[in-house]
Amino acid sequence: MASGPCTELAADSMALGEFELIARYFQRNAAPRNPAVALGIGDDCALLQAPPGLMPGQPPDAPSSMQWAISTDMLVEGQHFFPDVAPEALGHKALAVNLSDLAACGAQPVAFTLALALPDSNAAREAWVDAFTRGLFALADAQGCTLIGGDTTRGPLNICITVLGSVPAAQGRGQALLRSGARPGDDIWVSGTLGDARLALLAIKAQRGERGPAAARWLQLPPEVLKTARGRLERPTPRVALGVALRGIANACMDLSDGLVGDLQHILEASRCGARLLAPVLSELLASHRLDGNALTPPERLSLVLSGGDDYELLFTAPANRREAVATAAAVANTPVTRIGQIEAQEGLRVVDAQGQRLAGRFASFDHFA
Amino acid sequence: MASGPCTELAADSMALGEFELIARYFQRNAAPRNPAVALGIGDDCALLQAPPGLMPGQPPDAPSSMQWAISTDMLVEGQHFFPDVAPEALGHKALAVNLSDLAACGAQPVAFTLALALPDSNAAREAWVDAFTRGLFALADAQGCTLIGGDTTRGPLNICITVLGSVPAAQGRGQALLRSGARPGDDIWVSGTLGDARLALLAIKAQRGERGPAAARWLQLPPEVLKTARGRLERPTPRVALGVALRGIANACMDLSDGLVGDLQHILEASRCGARLLAPVLSELLASHRLDGNALTPPERLSLVLSGGDDYELLFTAPANRREAVATAAAVANTPVTRIGQIEAQEGLRVVDAQGQRLAGRFASFDHFA
Repeated sequence: MASGPCTELAADSMALGEFELIARYFQRNAAPRNPAVALGIGDDCALLQAPPGLMPGQPPDAPSSMQWAISTDMLVEGQHFFPDVAPEALGHKALAVNLSDLAACGAQPVAFTLALALPDSNAAREAWVDAFTRGLFALADAQGCTLIGGDTTRGPLNICITVLGSVPAAQGRGQALLRSGARPGDDIWVSGTLGDARLALLAIKAQRGERGPAAARWLQLPPEVLKTARGRLERPTPRVALGVALRGIANACMDLSDGLVGDLQHILEASRCGARLLAPVLSELLASHRLDGNALTPPERLSLVLSGGDDYELLFTAPANRREAVATAAAVANTPVTRIGQIEAQEGLRVVDAQGQRLAGRFASFDHFA
Repeated sequence: MASGPCTELAADSMALGEFELIARYFQRNAAPRNPAVALGIGDDCALLQAPPGLMPGQPPDAPSSMQWAISTDMLVEGQHFFPDVAPEALGHKALAVNLSDLAACGAQPVAFTLALALPDSNAAREAWVDAFTRGLFALADAQGCTLIGGDTTRGPLNICITVLGSVPAAQGRGQALLRSGARPGDDIWVSGTLGDARLALLAIKAQRGERGPAAARWLQLPPEVLKTARGRLERPTPRVALGVALRGIANACMDLSDGLVGDLQHILEASRCGARLLAPVLSELLASHRLDGNALTPPERLSLVLSGGDDYELLFTAPANRREAVATAAAVANTPVTRIGQIEAQEGLRVVDAQGQRLAGRFASFDHFA
């Protein structure tokens, strides 16, 4: 049970309460042991393997030769998307955020279920479903991921998808990428660009009249910049090919849904280590900044990249001597990657400037642009 | 994508629209073929098997030795449960209706994911989650089904569970029980009792002031009758052990969520045959009737049994020469079963009295007690 997509359309969020609730009520240390569960709550995906005793001709304790990676995300109107979002984009995004969890584990997508609550008030329900499924199936077909079942009901608009992907296993050891594998000395990498989805969200909220301190600046964004950024918010690209290519290369991996700083903390906690991030490199990761350098101050750019959320890029670590392998994997997957820092033995997260000087601590925690 | 639990708290339902929507937009005949999908949309569960090429030391086309049965159900406040239902009972029921789908396929429960949208307004959120998870995990632990992941978010109360169970396969042929296997001459069987959940629903609605034509009679039910019936509505028992015991014996099987007549139609359509049901036997299946024979007229009793819904009993067919095997399976599973009719080659559903005379056709279609 990882946290789901976390677009904060509302002023505050239940993010904190979410992690507390999960830790207190859902992560049960005293739960009965289940030999079919290779990995339970806490990573991007859970991992299941064939229960022992079900493989005829094999001893009951024979190691499983594959594992299923499984993840669930629920999208709620007003929480994760605006009521007037294009249903085709929503169909794409609902599956994309789930595929992103498979990508984070290096799993190959296989199938998904869809549960859908549709409001009565949707007079054009059929047109809505038509557009929604077009966006959904275009991505599903491109990724070879088959809709195998689900549920439809009446209710406030709610989309819940569960994806299943496959990961090879050898001698019973699965090749899934986990959050817990980072080692001191590892490079920290990120795919694509960061912060653009949040930039779009802030601009849309400013257009809708929700004025924050920087709203005037968001409203100055040129239309083509906003269009690009909005594409990142509403039609994220799950990095499935990169995740698969990084099997056996990356030591740790996760997808970025809540923002770089908040999400990196999960790797650091799971791997019991710290990290140093390079601010000048990070600042270059905001694609919209490259389109229009004057609209945003440098601290705003850095904050968008560090705390943006909804990026659905892969954040991963790999030994420094595997840089060539990482470059090859990125080329195979046709996905740009950038080295943004290093894993360190000392716990905590440090953001440093070009001279190696630590920047003010406010970057080191989840910043809601409050 | 079978229809989900269908408690009709509201005056009408999107049931018809649901099946149409699924057929038109989700059951895609032109979808790319996926060798990992042994069975897709349309039964109680989908069936997945290891994708070819992932089993080292085996030829790429080696038959899979097990299959995963997968099902998803979404429960929405006001649609599937009353806002004031006890959260512990709701936790039980949310998992029970999913386990019932596994039972229908003869699958052994292994794991589940849970996505949960919780309203802000729930001031006692933590107490609610505490009670909800108590009901959830009591059933999960009893069935050996492990929570492996999920999602929590803010939003109108919505509970979406996806369950995974295992089914043995030999020579690549899975042993799952399907809707499509009924044959003319098969006996039709049902587990437990029918109609009590709907009786409770009608009584509760009458108590809440929603008066139907028979509301006065529902209100006359003795408290102990209502308590028993309400237990059936709020804490259904998934017939997992019976489903597993029926592997290799039943020709077709499904669980009863929408009501006997409506659900049996799915078996008849999938198996391309018809059926004859014995009204006198059916009338005896309403447990509350045995407690209080005077409160309901015979047609009301029969209608509750035929069109009740929310029973979560197993409806299955088996060859007439396997009656002893069925009895043994029922004894092993400690679950009563009753023979209620026969599969016939002639299409359509016929309900007959003790003399074999056909009853009025109004029993032959889904009756909303309108």
